[in-house]
Amino acid sequence: MTTLVFGHKSPDTDSTGSPLIWAWYLTEVQGQKAEAVLLGEPNTEAAFVLNRWDCPKPRIVTEIADGTPAVIVDTNNPAELPANVNALDVTAIIDHHKLVGGLETKGPIDITIRPLACTATIMHDLMGDTALPDQIKGLMLSCILSDTLEFRSPTTTEHDRAVAEKLAADLGIDIAAYASELFEAKSDISAFADAELLRMDSKEYEVAGTKFRVSVLETTAPKLVLDRKDSLMASMVDVAAQDGVDQVLLFVVDILNEEATLLVPNDLVKTLAEKSFAATVTGDTVVLPGVMSRKKQIIPVLTM
Amino acid sequence: MTTLVFGHKSPDTDSTGSPLIWAWYLTEVQGQKAEAVLLGEPNTEAAFVLNRWDCPKPRIVTEIADGTPAVIVDTNNPAELPANVNALDVTAIIDHHKLVGGLETKGPIDITIRPLACTATIMHDLMGDTALPDQIKGLMLSCILSDTLEFRSPTTTEHDRAVAEKLAADLGIDIAAYASELFEAKSDISAFADAELLRMDSKEYEVAGTKFRVSVLETTAPKLVLDRKDSLMASMVDVAAQDGVDQVLLFVVDILNEEATLLVPNDLVKTLAEKSFAATVTGDTVVLPGVMSRKKQIIPVLTM
Repeated sequence: MTTLVFGHKSPDTDSTGSPLIWAWYLTEVQGQKAEAVLLGEPNTEAAFVLNRWDCPKPRIVTEIADGTPAVIVDTNNPAELPANVNALDVTAIIDHHKLVGGLETKGPIDITIRPLACTATIMHDLMGDTALPDQIKGLMLSCILSDTLEFRSPTTTEHDRAVAEKLAADLGIDIAAYASELFEAKSDISAFADAELLRMDSKEYEVAGTKFRVSVLETTAPKLVLDRKDSLMASMVDVAAQDGVDQVLLFVVDILNEEATLLVPNDLVKTLAEKSFAATVTGDTVVLPGVMSRKKQIIPVLTM
Repeated sequence: MTTLVFGHKSPDTDSTGSPLIWAWYLTEVQGQKAEAVLLGEPNTEAAFVLNRWDCPKPRIVTEIADGTPAVIVDTNNPAELPANVNALDVTAIIDHHKLVGGLETKGPIDITIRPLACTATIMHDLMGDTALPDQIKGLMLSCILSDTLEFRSPTTTEHDRAVAEKLAADLGIDIAAYASELFEAKSDISAFADAELLRMDSKEYEVAGTKFRVSVLETTAPKLVLDRKDSLMASMVDVAAQDGVDQVLLFVVDILNEEATLLVPNDLVKTLAEKSFAATVTGDTVVLPGVMSRKKQIIPVLTM
């Protein structure tokens, strides 16, 4: 049977590129039958990356049959995976997120989780001195530049940076110029409805009994998002109700200026912002200097 | 702060040796402060190994303060770890068991789980070409021979075997002779009460709503155990009641003859044995040819 390789349900560049990278490795190097698939539509940056490196868009699957051999990458969170994930035949997990619990396997399998910025960096290490075609190098480089926001995110490690610089040198690619292309693609939000923007890159998180959907939009053009702030704040009420959370938080991360703007639709978010970030909130937005990473700078400080 | 490195609550050779191996690596190679500790008294084989390789017995700890830096080895099962394990600062997990779920970490950490027979084999790989002192090689070899029952267990992989043979060659040790010493040490059960034997190497497992404590005693002298079968079966009732399970199962694994004898104290176990192993039970024991591994040959087939 063919092993399906997939990341989480909101495929960004790492969750689109890493399945392709690992499916290539399983097929071409390990001699297994493997196929990269997506659990949702790739975001605009991921779509740009597929096009740039001549990769056909992987098949989008919404249901996977029990017992299907599977490799999970870029997440270990059952909430971000098919509902029947524990009934699949998961043979490996490669990830760089905290262990959230909930995944169970029938027997011992290969699990590699590392505190690095990007799944593709871990895959690079696992492949050792395997000779990589340019397409795979290009995907790896794209994943690392995307997840590290061109090394600006505090999740970046020296190792992620070194691997990216080596790949870029091999490919003859100028990192700054290529990263600009990536971020420009990610910043094109014109095709998305408000509710889509609120769900595009978001994780549920509970603080003192209150459930939040913590959404992040990384962009080089924050104005494009903030121009839509009134309708985004109106949409938050519907999205929260539909998704069974109490409040949506939207952090608009300005990649180039290295700051985030949090939308403040009500007193609940105002109080949260003031307590969590020692910020003074006067209007319906608040700028949080230096905040770029949900994992490192938002989730750990959220308090009510 | 010093990182505590520990395995599960019933320290066998792998759960005693692997913490020592990894604490050595963290201290001597990584330049960190680390200490191997045990969550219980080592079994007789592990005690023999400590003595053979001139290792002082690690400190036995029963409580670990919240926030203590910790590396967990040879398990990922919260039931086999301190009750406050998710409140510790776990920085790494190295294991070769199935993922059971339940462990959670505050941030991304190093997790390496491999479908190999022994934690020490994984550590050997993670250390790469680090020069190892004889003491560490001796501990690694002991762990692998113990967990693979000298390569007899079906959990054994070619890689475990190759690593053990390399270590034995480096040390000038005859594997067969040394394994005999290990198993002889493990087979000396004279100091243990019946209840201790029933709990020494056991895992809880539920079949169709019935809770079992599945105990295994690996020995080269099954007669020493079976001579005590009447009092062991009497003790099962008390142990089950105290531990909140419905039934204790005791499999006496004859390492040299590669078979297990299951004690059959009542009709419940008789039915279970007949359904699970296609065995015909006539008395109060049943021999199961070829059965050596709880993980591979007992847990997966248990049916009611």
